[in-house]
Amino acid sequence: MATSKAYAIIAGVGPGTGAAIAKKFAQAYSVVLLARSTSSYSSLEKEINDSGGDAFGVSTDVSSPDSINNVLQEIDAKFGADSTCAAAIFNAAGKLTIKPFLEQTEEAFLAPFNVNCIGGFHFSQAVLPLLLKATNHSTTHPPTLIFTGATASLKASANFSSFAVSKFATRALVQSLTREFGPKGIHVAHAIIDGIIDTPGTADFMKDAGPDAKISPETIAETYWYLHTQPKSGFTNELEIRPSAEKW
Amino acid sequence: MATSKAYAIIAGVGPGTGAAIAKKFAQAYSVVLLARSTSSYSSLEKEINDSGGDAFGVSTDVSSPDSINNVLQEIDAKFGADSTCAAAIFNAAGKLTIKPFLEQTEEAFLAPFNVNCIGGFHFSQAVLPLLLKATNHSTTHPPTLIFTGATASLKASANFSSFAVSKFATRALVQSLTREFGPKGIHVAHAIIDGIIDTPGTADFMKDAGPDAKISPETIAETYWYLHTQPKSGFTNELEIRPSAEKW
Amino acid sequence: MATSKAYAIIAGVGPGTGAAIAKKFAQAYSVVLLARSTSSYSSLEKEINDSGGDAFGVSTDVSSPDSINNVLQEIDAKFGADSTCAAAIFNAAGKLTIKPFLEQTEEAFLAPFNVNCIGGFHFSQAVLPLLLKATNHSTTHPPTLIFTGATASLKASANFSSFAVSKFATRALVQSLTREFGPKGIHVAHAIIDGIIDTPGTADFMKDAGPDAKISPETIAETYWYLHTQPKSGFTNELEIRPSAEKW
Amino acid sequence: MATSKAYAIIAGVGPGTGAAIAKKFAQAYSVVLLARSTSSYSSLEKEINDSGGDAFGVSTDVSSPDSINNVLQEIDAKFGADSTCAAAIFNAAGKLTIKPFLEQTEEAFLAPFNVNCIGGFHFSQAVLPLLLKATNHSTTHPPTLIFTGATASLKASANFSSFAVSKFATRALVQSLTREFGPKGIHVAHAIIDGIIDTPGTADFMKDAGPDAKISPETIAETYWYLHTQPKSGFTNELEIRPSAEKW
Repeated sequence: MATSKAYAIIAGVGPGTGAAIAKKFAQAYSVVLLARSTSSYSSLEKEINDSGGDAFGVSTDVSSPDSINNVLQEIDAKFGADSTCAAAIFNAAGKLTIKPFLEQTEEAFLAPFNVNCIGGFHFSQAVLPLLLKATNHSTTHPPTLIFTGATASLKASANFSSFAVSKFATRALVQSLTREFGPKGIHVAHAIIDGIIDTPGTADFMKDAGPDAKISPETIAETYWYLHTQPKSGFTNELEIRPSAEKW
Repeated sequence: MATSKAYAIIAGVGPGTGAAIAKKFAQAYSVVLLARSTSSYSSLEKEINDSGGDAFGVSTDVSSPDSINNVLQEIDAKFGADSTCAAAIFNAAGKLTIKPFLEQTEEAFLAPFNVNCIGGFHFSQAVLPLLLKATNHSTTHPPTLIFTGATASLKASANFSSFAVSKFATRALVQSLTREFGPKGIHVAHAIIDGIIDTPGTADFMKDAGPDAKISPETIAETYWYLHTQPKSGFTNELEIRPSAEKW
Repeated sequence: MATSKAYAIIAGVGPGTGAAIAKKFAQAYSVVLLARSTSSYSSLEKEINDSGGDAFGVSTDVSSPDSINNVLQEIDAKFGADSTCAAAIFNAAGKLTIKPFLEQTEEAFLAPFNVNCIGGFHFSQAVLPLLLKATNHSTTHPPTLIFTGATASLKASANFSSFAVSKFATRALVQSLTREFGPKGIHVAHAIIDGIIDTPGTADFMKDAGPDAKISPETIAETYWYLHTQPKSGFTNELEIRPSAEKW
Repeated sequence: MATSKAYAIIAGVGPGTGAAIAKKFAQAYSVVLLARSTSSYSSLEKEINDSGGDAFGVSTDVSSPDSINNVLQEIDAKFGADSTCAAAIFNAAGKLTIKPFLEQTEEAFLAPFNVNCIGGFHFSQAVLPLLLKATNHSTTHPPTLIFTGATASLKASANFSSFAVSKFATRALVQSLTREFGPKGIHVAHAIIDGIIDTPGTADFMKDAGPDAKISPETIAETYWYLHTQPKSGFTNELEIRPSAEKW
């Protein structure tokens, strides 16, 4: 039974950016919350539903096509065949190992890539047909696919090869999708988050740097929403977001 | 006599982008319209004032410090010493000569630079003290300085050296200002317009390319407004805007 | 038995670029030729040895650490413990599938990445200790690690996501290595080959485009050699090579 | 009376990079040394001539077309109508003022642009016809035009707007020339010098940073010469040069 005709899918809804994006998009759409473990989305799901929104979470391994296909089936069961995928956000992030190159294992080296790029690949293959279908519906805004990037999308520092490989690679994926699906009416965008995001996990970072030294997740969510609202006569395919106090 | 406590200055308000930006910002602020000739702003000024906004135009040569200083005096006289400069938009553009390099004259080569970069220099020197002052006021959004860039801000094609020189140079100016004034609380941003803007002057371009082959000025204006509303916890300092149908 | 105290390793010596690089470096060093199949290096090996050089080939799967370790053992056996690794060139390339994104399989999508980036990872982990050791030897030129990039290292076109992902990713790997190992005296460089390389496989491409429409492998080899000869007082870490006639 | 049929022109031959380039190119060509004041080139001119080379200096203001035209007349008088311009190097640099933006004067802001970009414009307009003529001669290497760039060609730091404007602008000029004149057989290149050059003027910089913390002018000169020797089947149009010890 569909509780809404249009929905957004957000992959990677741990505390911080993903949760803020989900709450923002939940103001307009039903939201499907993907995270590896139930504990990552259950309180967010409850918070959104308690405040009048419509959210449901699915435990998902984005690097697994089977796991992603299961999401699609859950969506079909929940929203039905006439539902509209208004937006899909890929905010998943693999575990990061920062260390000298010669101390990296292949497993640790590939961990971010496996989630960020292979996960992004499977996520895109799953949601793009839904977004293409939505271009034929009467939607308020063009169907949108947004990826979260990072400073390491553009610059590979010493000891960060693993993270930078995953982020350069994902930027390439997004740029190619932008060029292929933009003319088909889908807004594909890449947001480069250039700074520390203010989350529970970064509470001890930059404590003495004053306000606005970290990026608030809500600001990122507002920007993603703005990207979603751009009409086809002017898409932003890449932008950066950084704190006003950032030295860059 | 001030008709409003906060105002925005828009340099370069010919038909198209500048006019759309002025109308958008006039929904929230008094707007000061700068153009070289009165004819470029008089109908826009009337349109905004007739629809309940507050606009006044000043004939200005942005490449002349005297002319820019005259604008500041007009603003002081009109809005008074306690007024707030909420935003300044630099959208002026010099005359473009596209031709083989060995046929370029120095005068034609420098014409875009003189307006885009030297004009941007004088405009920035005039408005940044106003924007700095505004950081001490209680404003809804951080004081904002936005420049209009182009494809040629990033790529210099054959026969386009004159335009690209002016646009690369202006991007450098903006990037340096971003780094200097961001930590002081001013949002400096550069919008790269990558495509043909849909204006009266481009009516005959891309006629067979279908809808959304050109960028609507209103979309650009909405994006500038969104940039203005970003809080200090997350500034976008550079973004691109292009039509969904653009091959890039 | 070592026929030379210094050697260069070239991974990816099919006809074209790899062979030209091997012949160039063979003028100064013993060369170790890596390719997946013996047929890719056997005639090159013979050609170099017949003309007074010293080459030996090893069938290698660069994406396999075991296979790479076997190369190191062969080198030890051949050149002995006091030998010097003067240069290592990574020119291997995975099979490329250009097609619409929704028709890509995961296997085809990852094929270039598995060779270019994972292969580059294992190759670098194997040769960097050799190159670090060489910084303590008396070498004519700083020990050098060069990767072959492509247009797709910087731009991801529609339908090229697979190739661009592998090339963006590898550029990130190289850039991180450059920053980590440059201060240790190793010259890490990335050469962006922006155009069609003139090989047997591209004989039918651009037939009517005149001379110099394709890049000669010998020119690439000369540039790699020049990179190798740069002293520590001035390294080029990234450059592009394109035909004079290229429209870019 | 010409002592050689082929010559190179080097603009900006103060101590350091320009002198090193002149000495390198003097090993193959007669060299024309341009500097604003005689004192900048007279000892270099003597040094080259005393060591068997052929050099002559001309006091030149590269930002003045008249001054540049005078150089062409001197070259005609010296080398005759059948002489060949093999290479032209633009290494001139305007006076740099690093200061907060609001303290910059227009004059100081434009000083680097006037030399680097307007000078580069006039220099290019003067030498490109000579280089085009040389493409019809039998030359060892393609006629070459090289510009010296800097870190500020790609990044505009706070307080560096003046320098960055000049360097971004000049990069645009070079990139446009590359695209226009490459297909005509002229090798146009831009070398980004990313670090402190080891000259008498920087003797006190980075004294404790160890060897190879600064870029040697000779290394830059060798790289320019290598660029000159590239055949049309593979031009490098942009590269960077930095010390091995550089943190970037």
